[in-house]
Order: sequence, then structure tokens, then C-alpha cells
Amino acid sequence: MQRCADYFTAAETQVLRPVLESFVARGKYLRSSFAYLGWLCGRPESGAAARAIASLELLHAFALIQDDVMDDSATRRGEPTTHVQLTDWVRGRQQPVGEPDRFGRSAALLLSDLCLLWAERMLRESGLPTDAMARVWPVYDQMRSELAVGQYSDLLNEHAATTSFDTVMDIARRKSGNYSVLRPLQLGAASAGCGPLVMQMLQVYGIAVGEAFQLRDDLLGVFGDPAVTGKPVGDDLRQSKATSVIVAAYDLADPVQYQQLRDLSQTRPGPHDDSEEAWVRAWQEAIRATGADQFIERLIAERVVIATTALSRTDAVPNLPRDMLITLADRCTRRSR
Amino acid sequence: MQRCADYFTAAETQVLRPVLESFVARGKYLRSSFAYLGWLCGRPESGAAARAIASLELLHAFALIQDDVMDDSATRRGEPTTHVQLTDWVRGRQQPVGEPDRFGRSAALLLSDLCLLWAERMLRESGLPTDAMARVWPVYDQMRSELAVGQYSDLLNEHAATTSFDTVMDIARRKSGNYSVLRPLQLGAASAGCGPLVMQMLQVYGIAVGEAFQLRDDLLGVFGDPAVTGKPVGDDLRQSKATSVIVAAYDLADPVQYQQLRDLSQTRPGPHDDSEEAWVRAWQEAIRATGADQFIERLIAERVVIATTALSRTDAVPNLPRDMLITLADRCTRRSR
Repeated sequence: MQRCADYFTAAETQVLRPVLESFVARGKYLRSSFAYLGWLCGRPESGAAARAIASLELLHAFALIQDDVMDDSATRRGEPTTHVQLTDWVRGRQQPVGEPDRFGRSAALLLSDLCLLWAERMLRESGLPTDAMARVWPVYDQMRSELAVGQYSDLLNEHAATTSFDTVMDIARRKSGNYSVLRPLQLGAASAGCGPLVMQMLQVYGIAVGEAFQLRDDLLGVFGDPAVTGKPVGDDLRQSKATSVIVAAYDLADPVQYQQLRDLSQTRPGPHDDSEEAWVRAWQEAIRATGADQFIERLIAERVVIATTALSRTDAVPNLPRDMLITLADRCTRRSR
Repeated sequence: MQRCADYFTAAETQVLRPVLESFVARGKYLRSSFAYLGWLCGRPESGAAARAIASLELLHAFALIQDDVMDDSATRRGEPTTHVQLTDWVRGRQQPVGEPDRFGRSAALLLSDLCLLWAERMLRESGLPTDAMARVWPVYDQMRSELAVGQYSDLLNEHAATTSFDTVMDIARRKSGNYSVLRPLQLGAASAGCGPLVMQMLQVYGIAVGEAFQLRDDLLGVFGDPAVTGKPVGDDLRQSKATSVIVAAYDLADPVQYQQLRDLSQTRPGPHDDSEEAWVRAWQEAIRATGADQFIERLIAERVVIATTALSRTDAVPNLPRDMLITLADRCTRRSR
């Protein structure tokens, strides 16, 4: 973060700094943890690797800030989203601007651009040797492109009722799973120069945990406690988002349950409507009635077993990162936020 | 462009490819021309340099697509803007999406992200030697950060009536002048390893032409022919944008003219209002009455003289790029689009 601070020198950009700092400080550091464990599979602790990998948090800040603008989300990590903070800030300012909402969205997008640029610069200037960087760039490029292409696919498949479960899992893998788990692991391991055996093991682990991570996220999107997740429950439902648990509910529903789900999706209340809580509860009950939540829980448990078994069966991965990866597989698929 | 095509393999991303291709094909190639002339100041023609520099067109596509989303502009380069094209495309699609407008904006933002990533990758993989790249990255980083920070400043200073002319010129220099002329020149010259004398000359030239370029842009924003510029005239007026010509009009106005300008800024019609043409004509006359247009024309002419004089006074710059830079200074400050 100290590096970033250097960029915020002009008086007029001062507001961006605390907004970004508090944003990054509230993160889970999931991606950087996976990447550093990937590194430890091949090499001992290193300041250059830590700097390179910390850049993933800035990349993630880019993704979340932009995502919140696109979805027009109100809260993130328990606080108002970046564009909402910037809108509020400009509203309270002496000199008026034309449309505070438009200002907030545009300023947030520009801040996200800066995060994307700084992430890349931080990685490039991390001090990793040239041969390590040559192995890192292809993974990094793929990770960033997948993120954008995955989000784009997500936009086209928002309607739960018309999406197949395979499509949902495929998008989940590309958009979130790969981005959150597999690519960070590969990035760390590639920079450490790990051999093909370790890379293959990490791939099995990464795909399985990435999918489980996304499945948990989908469950939290419907059943999570807003006080813990930091985002309002029901957003996925309100947007009729094709998440795994919602699509599974349609797939598993008998004709009566199916009609009930369709009815619910067509009566969605506005975000501040009083009847909303009841509507969300009705959804939760309807989904539970189909058994979709238990189905997803089973898929998660299976994937954690696949991941930990893959790691346990080999000596190729050193003890420390292996044990931590097993712990992390459990933590990030049982999490409540 | 062929490189980019490789990325668009998934069926669902097919629509993005023609949108981007036609977008890039309609550009002025201004930034890449300046950068390549910068290169020719130090080295002979080179395929690697041409590839590195062509990446600036992708960077520019990123900037314009995002800018159009932020400003909610309807046309660019004589065609519907990217987000409008994507909105129309999804409207005509069999499978519906929730809100076509939101889809169009989000998809355009994701396409702009991809352009930003591909631009950087194209530069990194251009084949320029390591020492040249080490000189390029600082200029490239500065160029991209300035672009975002400059646009951010622009957001905060949209109100013409409350902005000083110095502030406008400062933003114009950082946002558009540096980005369009100075940084591309420096990027090309730095990659070619030009010495301090040439760099200094190009700096004088670049700042002067960059400012003149932006001043011309501001004049076109008020007086340009939409059939030639490809964007509707009056957008700058409708948004009460603090451009040089509008701020100069407030500065040069006598009390009666000043009141007239304020009145016009407070009666702005909607974008499809019938009275709009008359309102734009009234603005044009009011600005001409203050002499602001002639004032800006003088500033442009002065800057072209400064730029061409700087280049003519030295043997440090080879004949070919020098003559072309002199021609280009004239072209891009007299242009009608």
C-alpha cells in the first residue's frame, strides 16, 4: 500500500487514497495466500515473491470496484461500495458537480483502472529474476483475460431459469474458481519454477477448491448472514442470477416446486421494499424444499476430498505448504463470509 | 488486430470482435504516428518497434470505450458507441437478458478492460530488446496513470462557470495533450534510445502540439460539423463542460455577455429536444461575441510556431521524422475531426 500512496499526490485525488486503503485492508487475502503457498512449493520465503504476489490484492481491488459499478451494488465488505462512497463524498463537497451518481461511478471506474495498472507495475517491479517473470506473465495474462471473459459470459447467462447447470459450473470455474484459486497457485508455483509433477498436483487441487469456493459463495448468496458476509442477502435472487444453487433448485424441482420458483422470480420486490425479507425467506424455503442446498453441500464436500487427497498422496509438495493448503481448502469452503 | 482475434474464440464472445475491429479501423492513428516518429528520431524502421507502438491503438480503444460509457455518449467516429452497439445486439438476441442497457455498459467496460490488457501484452511481447523495454515501461506507466488521473480531474471540474482557465489548460495538458502527443513521442524516442538533446526538443514540441491539439478539440466540440467529427455537436455545452473555449468565453465576456452565457447554461435542453439546434446556435453566437474562438485560434497558432521552431533549430533530429513532425503539427491542429 505504501507504494500506491506515492501516486496520490495531487490534492484533488486525496479522497481516493483512504477509500482504496480501507478497501484493501478489509480483504480476505485469499488469492495472495494461495499464490504464496504456490511459491513455497518450490522455493523458500522471499521478499521479491511476496511483493510480486501482493499485487494480486490490487488486481482484486480492480475487479471488485468495477464489478460493484456494473452491478450497482450498495455494500461490499460491510461498507458502502466504492462508487457509493465517492458519490457521497462529492455530494458533501462545496463545489457541486453535475450528477453525483455519475461522478461516483466514473471516479470508481478510474480508481479501478489505476488499481489494475498498479497491480501490473508492482508485479513487474517486484524484483523477481527475469526467468521467473518470463514464467509468470503467461499465467498472469491468462488470469486477467479469463476474469473479464468470464464476467462477460456471466452477463449473458444471468437468467437462472434458462441456464443449464453445466454452463453455470463452467462459468463459475472460469470466472471465480480459476481466478481465486487455480491461477494464483499456478502463478506462485510457476514463479518458483516448480516441476511438472507439482504443477499437476496443484492443478487438481486448484480446480477442485476453486469450484468448491464458488459453490460456497453461491450458497452464501442465498442463505448467508448479511452481518457476516458484508453484502445484502438476496442480491442474487433479485437479479435472477444463474448461480449454482438457484439453477440446481430449478433442475431438482418437481412440477409444483418449479412453478413456485418461477412465480417467485417474477414477483421480485425492489431493493428497499418492505416485503423483501418475506420474499427472500420464501425463496430460501422453496430452494430448501428441492434439496438444492444439500446437493450443493455434497458437491463442495466431494471437491474438498479430491483436493486434499491429491496433495496427501505425494511427497513432491513440501510439508509446510501442503499442510497449509489442506487447511485452506477447508477454511475457504466452510467460510461464512 | 490479427493477434487480438485469437482471444475471441468462445462463441459467446464473437460479437466483441467485429465491434472492436471496426472501432480500431476508424481511428486517426495519431498516437501511434507520433510514437513511431519518436522512434525514427533515434533508429531506422523496425518491425518490433512498429508492433510495440501499434499497441497504443488498443490502449486508445480502451480509453474511448470506457469514456463513452462514463459520459453515456451515443456516437463515436460516426457510429453508435460500443456500449450502444452491444445494447442493440443483446436486444435483438433470442435469449433475453435482464436490462439491455446495463448489459451494454458492462460488456463495453469488459471489452475495454481486455483492450487495456492486450495493449500491454502486445507491447511486452513486441520483440523490442530488454534494455529498450526497460526505458519504455516508465513512460508507458506514466502515460496510463496520467490518463486516468486526468480524467478524474476532469470529472471534478466539469462546471465551466467555476473553473479557471489555468486549471482547464492544466487538465487539458495532462489528460489529452500528454496522452495524445508528448507521451507517445517520448515512448518511441525512449525505446530508440534517443539522447537528452533530442528528448528535450521533443518535449518542447510535444507539450506545444499537445496543447494545440486539445484546444482544437475544444473548438470542434462547440463549432465542429457533426458529419465530419462523428460526434454530436453541443455535448460539451450540454454537460457545461469546462473546456478551454467555454471557460475563455466566461473570462472574456463583459457583464451582459456573462449573464447571457449563464442563462444559456441554465436552460440546457435534453439531448433529443427540438429546441436543441437553436440552443447550440445561440451558444455559438454568444461565444463568438466574446472573441473566445479567436483567442483560442491564436493560442493554437502560437503553439504550432513554438513546436516547429524548436524542431527546425537543430540537427539532432534526422530530416525524415523532423519534416513529418512539422507536417503533423499542422495537420492535427488544423483538423476538422
